[in-house]
Amino acid sequence: MKKLTEQEINDRLENFEGWEYSENTIHTSFEFENFKEAFTLMTRIAFEAEAQQHHPDWSNVYNQLEIKLSTHDAGGVTEKDFKMANAIEGIVNAD
Amino acid sequence: MKKLTEQEINDRLENFEGWEYSENTIHTSFEFENFKEAFTLMTRIAFEAEAQQHHPDWSNVYNQLEIKLSTHDAGGVTEKDFKMANAIEGIVNAD
Repeated sequence: MKKLTEQEINDRLENFEGWEYSENTIHTSFEFENFKEAFTLMTRIAFEAEAQQHHPDWSNVYNQLEIKLSTHDAGGVTEKDFKMANAIEGIVNAD
Repeated sequence: MKKLTEQEINDRLENFEGWEYSENTIHTSFEFENFKEAFTLMTRIAFEAEAQQHHPDWSNVYNQLEIKLSTHDAGGVTEKDFKMANAIEGIVNAD
């Protein structure tokens, strides 16, 4: 899986609201109603991550969720990250 | 819930292996076999956190889990954090 250039990343990010590129990752944050809602969404994302065998670097405190995606093997952001970002948006926006 | 002094925190930490006190939190990290194992444990901890209405500041990447506990209302570490830390140890070590 080939590391994308900054231009390729920024082009793709135009289709994603609330996602940014920095420090070799694409990242976003979400705020939910409470912890239970946040963890419910995390669980759905966890199943998707496991299915894609591509796992987020994420942190949670109460209703806040921060997600960073990068492809360690490629040393940067690849199409795998955008596939996962797209799945995350689908999960969060389906709720 | 009263904020504990540094002495009180360090006394209590003697009963916890792998936990440290810094920046007004008690914190630890765990390494699991893979993402599925890590998230399985996170789920058990999430139910406990919800039951105690005391939620961790935690982050995960693949098989790594970092957990920080503090009591925001008290501006530091309280008995609530040690109760939660104790529950987390019970969950992780039961596995």
